[in-house]
Amino acid sequence: MKIYQESFVKMQKIVSDYTAKTTDLKVEQRVAEIIANVRKNGDEALQKYEEQFDQVKLKNFAVSKREMEQALNEISPELKKALLLAKKNIISYHKRELEYGFIDTDVPGITRGQKVTPLQRVGLYIPGGTAAYPSTILMSALPAKIAGVSQIVMVTPAQKEGIAAPVLAAAQLAGVDKIYQIGGAQAIAALAYGTQSIKAVNKIVGPGNIYVATAKKQVFGQVAIDMVAGPSEIGILADSSAQPAQIAADLLSQAEHDKRARAILVTDELEFAQKVSQEVDKQVEQLPRRAIAETAIAERSFIAVMNSISDMFALMNTVAPEHLEVQLKDPMQYLSLIRNAGSVFLGKYASEPLGDYVAGPNHVLPTGGTAKFSSPLGVYDFVKKTSFIQFSQDALAQDLDAITTLARAEGLEAHARAVEARFKD
Amino acid sequence: MKIYQESFVKMQKIVSDYTAKTTDLKVEQRVAEIIANVRKNGDEALQKYEEQFDQVKLKNFAVSKREMEQALNEISPELKKALLLAKKNIISYHKRELEYGFIDTDVPGITRGQKVTPLQRVGLYIPGGTAAYPSTILMSALPAKIAGVSQIVMVTPAQKEGIAAPVLAAAQLAGVDKIYQIGGAQAIAALAYGTQSIKAVNKIVGPGNIYVATAKKQVFGQVAIDMVAGPSEIGILADSSAQPAQIAADLLSQAEHDKRARAILVTDELEFAQKVSQEVDKQVEQLPRRAIAETAIAERSFIAVMNSISDMFALMNTVAPEHLEVQLKDPMQYLSLIRNAGSVFLGKYASEPLGDYVAGPNHVLPTGGTAKFSSPLGVYDFVKKTSFIQFSQDALAQDLDAITTLARAEGLEAHARAVEARFKD
Repeated sequence: MKIYQESFVKMQKIVSDYTAKTTDLKVEQRVAEIIANVRKNGDEALQKYEEQFDQVKLKNFAVSKREMEQALNEISPELKKALLLAKKNIISYHKRELEYGFIDTDVPGITRGQKVTPLQRVGLYIPGGTAAYPSTILMSALPAKIAGVSQIVMVTPAQKEGIAAPVLAAAQLAGVDKIYQIGGAQAIAALAYGTQSIKAVNKIVGPGNIYVATAKKQVFGQVAIDMVAGPSEIGILADSSAQPAQIAADLLSQAEHDKRARAILVTDELEFAQKVSQEVDKQVEQLPRRAIAETAIAERSFIAVMNSISDMFALMNTVAPEHLEVQLKDPMQYLSLIRNAGSVFLGKYASEPLGDYVAGPNHVLPTGGTAKFSSPLGVYDFVKKTSFIQFSQDALAQDLDAITTLARAEGLEAHARAVEARFKD
Repeated sequence: MKIYQESFVKMQKIVSDYTAKTTDLKVEQRVAEIIANVRKNGDEALQKYEEQFDQVKLKNFAVSKREMEQALNEISPELKKALLLAKKNIISYHKRELEYGFIDTDVPGITRGQKVTPLQRVGLYIPGGTAAYPSTILMSALPAKIAGVSQIVMVTPAQKEGIAAPVLAAAQLAGVDKIYQIGGAQAIAALAYGTQSIKAVNKIVGPGNIYVATAKKQVFGQVAIDMVAGPSEIGILADSSAQPAQIAADLLSQAEHDKRARAILVTDELEFAQKVSQEVDKQVEQLPRRAIAETAIAERSFIAVMNSISDMFALMNTVAPEHLEVQLKDPMQYLSLIRNAGSVFLGKYASEPLGDYVAGPNHVLPTGGTAKFSSPLGVYDFVKKTSFIQFSQDALAQDLDAITTLARAEGLEAHARAVEARFKD
């Protein structure tokens, strides 16, 4: 792995070059065309695109409820048990994210409050092929279920041999109400605008390739979306108290995801950095997804050697990684130094894949530095808030002067008169 | 006003035609050029655009701290008092929106939690000219302040005579740290990417014209944004127990905002509808902003007469109005029937302008039907969440089989090995 030993300022610049974003105008345009076509021609356009992109000819996009139920019997007992454990822990964690609104009656004659309402219909995008992860279905659907969403719809690209049993089983366990075999930008268009056979949803969540991400951005405003997801990342803060072989294994667990995945180690000792680098080189040779991992390590990953623990954390806050491991002694003490990260793994036994599967916190996380302003997918993504007020005439009278003063200062006479009209009967 | 008395299904169709969205490709392209130019040429591009669009030549975009402080002495004592009352009530309401995260230690050996971190830097867009509302500055900046944002930056188009004192005074009262005299798409680009004199922010909030809204959408992902705002709206649910003159005044208070504003009354009695319509015609003649209000009423507003209270609410949930007044007897009983609305005003004395200014709930609200999936601007917009876990070796051992089973089912061998490496020392 590439090892940098530079000043903090120089390192910050290197990090920002790694995360610079580019937009692809050709993709933008192609996606805009697909969306326009689906809006205009509905199911017919969807059928055409599924044939073109996924080589599958479908009469009916929906998977039957019976197929979903049967899938639970088709998967191995071990996989079913693992999915059930994951489900249990995801639910117990995410229930703590529930919001309840409030009511404020502190001032006589005035009631102010906020009510929390689940979204009515949401759509989950699940990538096709080898990236169709059952775990991601649990992570996306269960928070929506806990939030109280009435209808959870899942879309995933059509497959010649039909949707894989583990995917259907996970959807069934997670309480997905409907699955449609459609993918790509066309699926996002269908979820946003609806077609003859697919009802429009209020929010679309889930990862996808560049076409899916671009389509989500384009339909934003028509529906809500979660953050536009990029390649997976891990940042590890470790000193020589950690075992190089374990750190290397964790770096590679991200690198195997995607050629564009990113694995970053920040440490305070050059010798430790070199040991980890050697371990990465050794372990990567033994991986089934070696080619992918090697590319990610060579092109998008690095080790930075800093002068102090506080510089290590400061640099990592600039990276704002999706996953952050703190492989230092007594790691909980550093929680206050962490400003920007999607999900944090503290200590030797919190290896990142633990969080991917069964720990409970969500694994749909902000990538590409967006942890500076975004949160993990959560129950809060599937609700919205409505404020409300009720005032007595006396309470309104007390505020009358302030309201009319502000309204007239802003040149909004009708605003002032509407309130004054309450005292003219 | 146009009065409809149609079936529920027909009315639903009429509502959806009113809210259909269009995108303007020419604006999209022009905005993309402006953003690219600001990214490339920084302050020089900003200067050029401010001269071109706002006819002001600036050496320095920043307003001095002294100007901000002086503005508080330049406004009238009444206005200052009104702003202070608004500030007090906005703070007391929004403090209840604070989130605290959680820590879960239910299972021995396992710590799971969620920490809430304020965003570091946020940008507020405040429109120029007559739409530079001091109240909106309080509504945007105070929730960020309560959230604990380190730096609050405001941008507003340059004015020949300088920024108006009430705007500066409101910014000073709300705790805005920096004001830059830049506007339009170029200001959004500067906030998203930074220039020589302006530091990039993590989130941009606030209303603006079509160029601002389009620019916000284009920089989404680079920074976070609030919902893309459209023209203002009011929906009123009223029966004949309400006074037509008051209902008409409230409809007009929205209509005076913008030619594209929308005012909708849903009632259950034709005679009442006709009385309100006559009142609107009468009152609009007396308004300083008559031309604007008349256009909004004629082109974008209507009254619907439905058969029952439950149909009235069901139709209004389809509209999902930014502001919703419930002018029915004992209005609190209907809260459970309201699914989609930004802010709800219950009863005779909760006239909508009360909420615009001093009641306390936010007046930056989802428009154009986006209340189906969006919330009022709030403290929650200025924080983000980070999950964290710490496991003992025993706790990890208990989950080991489930993790490796899931990892291998998903074809991610390095994930399985990373966890297994924890038992090899």
